[in-house]
Amino acid sequence: MEGPVLRNQVLYHIADTEQVKLCRKSLYSRSKYALIESRLCHSHKGHDGRCDEFPYLKHIHKVAPKVAKKIVRDSVMTTGASWASDEAGPNRILRWVMLLEDKDLKSKFGINMAGLKPHVVAKLREKAATYSDCMEVALALTKAVYEMPGCPRPPADIQKYIETRLGKFKFDSTVCTICRSPLEFQLFDKARRGKAEIETSHTTPRQHNAKNVGFAHRRCNIAQGDMSLDEFYAWISGILTRLKSE
Amino acid sequence: MEGPVLRNQVLYHIADTEQVKLCRKSLYSRSKYALIESRLCHSHKGHDGRCDEFPYLKHIHKVAPKVAKKIVRDSVMTTGASWASDEAGPNRILRWVMLLEDKDLKSKFGINMAGLKPHVVAKLREKAATYSDCMEVALALTKAVYEMPGCPRPPADIQKYIETRLGKFKFDSTVCTICRSPLEFQLFDKARRGKAEIETSHTTPRQHNAKNVGFAHRRCNIAQGDMSLDEFYAWISGILTRLKSE
Repeated sequence: MEGPVLRNQVLYHIADTEQVKLCRKSLYSRSKYALIESRLCHSHKGHDGRCDEFPYLKHIHKVAPKVAKKIVRDSVMTTGASWASDEAGPNRILRWVMLLEDKDLKSKFGINMAGLKPHVVAKLREKAATYSDCMEVALALTKAVYEMPGCPRPPADIQKYIETRLGKFKFDSTVCTICRSPLEFQLFDKARRGKAEIETSHTTPRQHNAKNVGFAHRRCNIAQGDMSLDEFYAWISGILTRLKSE
Repeated sequence: MEGPVLRNQVLYHIADTEQVKLCRKSLYSRSKYALIESRLCHSHKGHDGRCDEFPYLKHIHKVAPKVAKKIVRDSVMTTGASWASDEAGPNRILRWVMLLEDKDLKSKFGINMAGLKPHVVAKLREKAATYSDCMEVALALTKAVYEMPGCPRPPADIQKYIETRLGKFKFDSTVCTICRSPLEFQLFDKARRGKAEIETSHTTPRQHNAKNVGFAHRRCNIAQGDMSLDEFYAWISGILTRLKSE
């Protein structure tokens, strides 16, 4: 059951996952955070072989391991921030851990939020997201990668898996969510001063869910800053209007 | 002799300074860099009182010392960069020192450019400027500050000094060089996470001279990035065009 594709506001309308039976067995983990929430197998119910949280990433993991790792990292972790070096707070942490209250973070995991600077707390808290949202983000990002010009086509089983959950592929259709020009898969290889040229972006900042994520040029993402996309477009439109009237 | 005021491309056409006789006596300095270039008195020839490199900043220095310091700092120093913390290179250094060749920097001042990472060297070198350009930048920025809405008016002597060198004031006319909306003087007091909301900006990046500098919102400056203003406007115009055609 596929929803409408609204290119401007959302990348994908996530299909009703009730229609797709997933295995959902808990995966064994030694992480202390497994106490909060078990990570689940996302293979189809009754699948062969081992359980896998990201079965649809197998192919990308082979052809472009860095991209697969980026999808996982950006989906589930709070992102690296410049304050990591000079502040005492955790930098990358599972997004759903940041849904816990201060007292639980302290008593259960030794994370003292009260000891962090307010803007560090804000940065961490605004990146909080449920496990389920993170999983849908990973899937949506994977589809967006396969739809980039220059990306190798998915094997049939992975194509079917993704299409069953998110609807038909539109290959070569992925554009920067901000500047709307095509995003070449090869751009993942490019970096300036250690910063990747493609970043995961949020149409509305701080809403980490499948409808709100996509990829953007680093330059565009920086320009958007903490504006929503609508605010950003209104802002640049205002600039051009003022410029014309001078 | 005042030149044309081209609001879009340049802030001011600097007046022919030959028409304005300045004192230009060398100022005593204990800085090791005084060996390269003497800093000069910029009061009018035959002035009363002590020599002064920035006589036109006296009033702003009184009413808003931080702003006066910012004008001096941004005019003469290479700016602070994020690499300062994790790289071994100098962070703030006089812009004209960066005009020297590697071998002179090493033998005379112990600065080993060859030992720095290439992007650090690039950052330092691209901020190089002559002493004379830095002095004109300081004057142009001072005029732009006085022309901000909300800025106290200059005392008569300073008004005359600046107008003699740069032409008539147009009070309340200073706009962000990038987004073209009025820049309130009060915005100098505002900062987010230690970052001032107003930054010195360069219409064409890396050209540090009076015709190419102005003030901009921090947000706008970040969005412009390493594009020239023309490139930036073309870029945002392209975004809106693509958006409309979707």
